[in-house]
Amino acid sequence: MRTTVGIIGAGPAGLLLARLLRNAGIDSVVLESHDRTYVERRQRAGILEQGTADVLRAAGAGERMDREGLRHDGIELRFERERHRVDFPARTGGSSVLVYAQTEVCKDLIALQLKEGGPLLFGAEALAVEGARSDRPLVRFRHEGREDVLDCDYVVGCDGFWGVARKAVPAGLSRVFERTYPFGWLGILADVAPSHDELVYARHERGFALLSMRSPAVSRLYLQVPEGTEAGAWADGEIWDELERRFETGDDWRLERGPVTSKSVTPMRSYVHEPMRYGRLFLAGDAAHIVPPTGAKGLNLAVGDVVTFARALEHLGDTGSAERLDSYSETCLRRVWQAERFSYDMTTLLHRAPGASPFEDRIQLARLRRVATSRAAETDLAEGYTGFPLE
Amino acid sequence: MRTTVGIIGAGPAGLLLARLLRNAGIDSVVLESHDRTYVERRQRAGILEQGTADVLRAAGAGERMDREGLRHDGIELRFERERHRVDFPARTGGSSVLVYAQTEVCKDLIALQLKEGGPLLFGAEALAVEGARSDRPLVRFRHEGREDVLDCDYVVGCDGFWGVARKAVPAGLSRVFERTYPFGWLGILADVAPSHDELVYARHERGFALLSMRSPAVSRLYLQVPEGTEAGAWADGEIWDELERRFETGDDWRLERGPVTSKSVTPMRSYVHEPMRYGRLFLAGDAAHIVPPTGAKGLNLAVGDVVTFARALEHLGDTGSAERLDSYSETCLRRVWQAERFSYDMTTLLHRAPGASPFEDRIQLARLRRVATSRAAETDLAEGYTGFPLE
Repeated sequence: MRTTVGIIGAGPAGLLLARLLRNAGIDSVVLESHDRTYVERRQRAGILEQGTADVLRAAGAGERMDREGLRHDGIELRFERERHRVDFPARTGGSSVLVYAQTEVCKDLIALQLKEGGPLLFGAEALAVEGARSDRPLVRFRHEGREDVLDCDYVVGCDGFWGVARKAVPAGLSRVFERTYPFGWLGILADVAPSHDELVYARHERGFALLSMRSPAVSRLYLQVPEGTEAGAWADGEIWDELERRFETGDDWRLERGPVTSKSVTPMRSYVHEPMRYGRLFLAGDAAHIVPPTGAKGLNLAVGDVVTFARALEHLGDTGSAERLDSYSETCLRRVWQAERFSYDMTTLLHRAPGASPFEDRIQLARLRRVATSRAAETDLAEGYTGFPLE
Repeated sequence: MRTTVGIIGAGPAGLLLARLLRNAGIDSVVLESHDRTYVERRQRAGILEQGTADVLRAAGAGERMDREGLRHDGIELRFERERHRVDFPARTGGSSVLVYAQTEVCKDLIALQLKEGGPLLFGAEALAVEGARSDRPLVRFRHEGREDVLDCDYVVGCDGFWGVARKAVPAGLSRVFERTYPFGWLGILADVAPSHDELVYARHERGFALLSMRSPAVSRLYLQVPEGTEAGAWADGEIWDELERRFETGDDWRLERGPVTSKSVTPMRSYVHEPMRYGRLFLAGDAAHIVPPTGAKGLNLAVGDVVTFARALEHLGDTGSAERLDSYSETCLRRVWQAERFSYDMTTLLHRAPGASPFEDRIQLARLRRVATSRAAETDLAEGYTGFPLE
């Protein structure tokens, strides 16, 4: 097989890239190791930044998103029985976010790709990227029991943290930046209307809690738990009880309970691989960087990467200049590091670190109070949450 | 001896408090263990927040300050050969800071006190505060070889971190919040015109450096050094060389050298004692809290404390209500914790922590870039630097 852009991975990054390239008249092939059902069901992010929603819309993939997505104009911070709402449009000059699950984004993009786009191969497991430094990089993959080769002008690794693309960068050229956290998120999906119409981020001495939602009928709730906790270790009732404690529900606000349909633990990690480009191999999304979920930046960063790549390749076609392709890594990393910083700071702002000193506790509360009392600090947070601009 | 307010310590907090009380018609006695020469010469802070300068002016102690102080409308941040100026008035709606050494503030206040104020006893060493829970607290002190007692309505401990006042709070009622840093500042005074007209805060992989000044003819410069460094371990030439390295001086900017007249190492510490009031004993300034010097908050916090106390006592006189005196600790601590947060964040933003991971290095640079590119983040810093409002 031969194509201009070989895309490894049919998550939101790979699927959106295929769509952007198709719209620009550039052909591509997408290889995805899992089957369609798996891709359309794996629970991931659910918050689209203003810019991400705009990109999907412009790509012709925003119809159902705009019909079913929930526009959120703010979040609520809770700490020490105080409640503070951050008003996004007021602080950012009109930006907001959209609650629309990654699974739905994937469904929409898969349907479009199968209808109008180039080849999208499910069950096609990429085995290796070769010749990244040559003019003809290739992807070796296994599909329907046979090994095959995809010859490309460019390869984009959208294959996530565990994928093969990053492994094609020689170790001597790689720099890895990493931080792990001694806690994770126990997340549930519950068939009950969300108890608040916006996300509630709660800092509590027992740990962080988050109220989110997938739709007007489905709540998504999270509890900070110690690293290594098994989801099964918590009974549903215990989870609801603990959520109530951390949200400090009372007469003014009740947490509605409902059947728990999914329960899982997400580990927390910050990770960046530099550079994000090696010859004609480009890394995008989780293949190059991971953020803890506190700032809801993972999906949005992946979108930023593939938009940068697609624009750079279009620029090459329009002008003959590879300048933008050559600076892909630097361009993406500026945005990536701002999102890493934001995600790290949001995590530190809200989570209870085991062994945190009383001094650190007070500093954490002082930071929350600062956000609640300074328009500048609140704006800084609102800008970060609604998204850093694409370059 | 008998007075309304017994003040322990003739640093800027104690001296200003005596002045504020005298202006309000309330009598006080100031006990200072050192002699006048010592008090007027000990090198400390040099940056007065907008609000601090306003308070000194209103207290009638601003004449020489306004003549000789240097108004600064910004600071410069340096990192990775980038230079970013933070414009204070533009970001804060007109606030700036004044460079005027603490020694000069003390000289001005001592002269005023001796001319117009109540007793100010040098060489009067406070030994203990007793009866803080009674209506008649007292200070035992030693003066000219004799032990004596100062009977008071109120005692204010402005006697610094090592003073006796804080020791009068029973251990069971005290909560201490503390953080030490594995580095300190090697500071020099040099008889040479400052090489830049505003303060320069430099983040460098070899460590933090700061260019400051005491006057148009005297430079004050600092280097981050490992904890426990002796000032004598650095020759003058080595200090200048290292400053040049960290400031990354070049063709566009030179560091002028001059005779070093003083060399000392300042340890770095964050410390808060809660509560700041015990009965009729009130703690102010370093007696209750210490900040690392990065944000120049120490002197300014002390001024905030004594202004809060003086206003509360005036309020009692005017209205008969002790409400403000009773909430002295809570009122001060709100401001103290914002300053602790700011000082901690400025320290973390600019210093090289031994053993910092490559991830933390990148986060530090991302934070500096954020300040340099986001008006909101820059405003947050500028508001913190020029000062948190008095309540």
